[in-house]
Amino acid sequence: MPIEMYDLAASDDRVRFSPYCWRIRMAMAHKGLDFETIPVRFMEKHKIEFSGQKLVPVIRDNDKIIHDSWDIALYLDETYADRPKLIDGPQALALTDFVRSWAQTTLSTPILKTILTDLFNGLDDKDKPYFRTSREQRFGTTLENFALAPDAGRAAIKQTLTPLRDLLGRQKFICGATPAFADYIVFGVFMWAHCVSHVMLIEGEDPVQAWRERMLDLYDGLARKAPRNPA
Amino acid sequence: MPIEMYDLAASDDRVRFSPYCWRIRMAMAHKGLDFETIPVRFMEKHKIEFSGQKLVPVIRDNDKIIHDSWDIALYLDETYADRPKLIDGPQALALTDFVRSWAQTTLSTPILKTILTDLFNGLDDKDKPYFRTSREQRFGTTLENFALAPDAGRAAIKQTLTPLRDLLGRQKFICGATPAFADYIVFGVFMWAHCVSHVMLIEGEDPVQAWRERMLDLYDGLARKAPRNPA
Repeated sequence: MPIEMYDLAASDDRVRFSPYCWRIRMAMAHKGLDFETIPVRFMEKHKIEFSGQKLVPVIRDNDKIIHDSWDIALYLDETYADRPKLIDGPQALALTDFVRSWAQTTLSTPILKTILTDLFNGLDDKDKPYFRTSREQRFGTTLENFALAPDAGRAAIKQTLTPLRDLLGRQKFICGATPAFADYIVFGVFMWAHCVSHVMLIEGEDPVQAWRERMLDLYDGLARKAPRNPA
Repeated sequence: MPIEMYDLAASDDRVRFSPYCWRIRMAMAHKGLDFETIPVRFMEKHKIEFSGQKLVPVIRDNDKIIHDSWDIALYLDETYADRPKLIDGPQALALTDFVRSWAQTTLSTPILKTILTDLFNGLDDKDKPYFRTSREQRFGTTLENFALAPDAGRAAIKQTLTPLRDLLGRQKFICGATPAFADYIVFGVFMWAHCVSHVMLIEGEDPVQAWRERMLDLYDGLARKAPRNPA
């Protein structure tokens, strides 16, 4: 039986934009696991009530129910230990966690600000009031004030990407010669943008852009084939 | 025979402030290796001429001469493979390299700006003109313009430390339950500051500060005992 993943959906429910769900989609492909996804919009949280909490991703693997992308990744490595590792040892675990902190606290912000208008516009009408209220509370300002125009957004993203650009000038993937979970964490942030927005995030030649293209091609173009909101 | 490390020195040549040399000093202690250090001031590069280049750290281990802190760390793990690993596998290697990129391209700048006046003042008089000229060329402005006052410096450092603070709220060291090379890379930046300046870099309760205290205590207080410039 394929693993089921409950996956955040836009108005067009083929459009799946959660950076956390993208981590797991790539992780399951990395491990060669069969999976299918179930769309969950913000106002459809009843679909994951069985998991005892309100956030996606949630996976159901036979009788096991796991939530939180970090815990799901650990579960997949433990349960499918004979398949390619997402995280290959104790130091890699700790350091992948640093990449997680960097992606969530540093990289996400300028990217979110740059795609925010498109992200909001692509939501289901039933989801928009919830999104606006919860995010405006989190940001401490209106969506419109929090958003950055494309040029300002790109400049902020470029600055934030400095350490990643430096690294990817020396190696092909964040995890070395082949991609692994830290790559999927950072790539999830880019897929969040890619699925909901057509704003160009990186201009000119950039090792990060070349890495992003390689990531889009992985697993028979899994990410490249992903449905996107229209331009 | 102990390993010799050529180590950047201030005017008081017991004060050793290179962040790159600190990485290796901690790394040799981590591996339980005997070592001694030879002070090298900026205008004493003739002391490392035998290495074929002009940057410290350089180590001499019997007949082997290695330079560049990254290559030295790899050499130590390879040569002393039965001792505790600095980097414990291929993913850890790649991810430690991300920490290196982050420390060098992101963390170093606000710390350098904050300690710059003290760093300059603590140099040997013979080194000051070289330091001023080479750094002003690199920064594209005078030392005085590049430097930040303590309050502004602390604010910039606080912002930059966000991902590290997030991580160290969840785990004791950057590398997990025990420190390893990625810890020494980041700690090297803090020791650079600690040895030359008494400006407080972090205010209030902060997991990064607690980690820094733990790092100062490692290996019988190796870093805590390090000579510093006077306040």
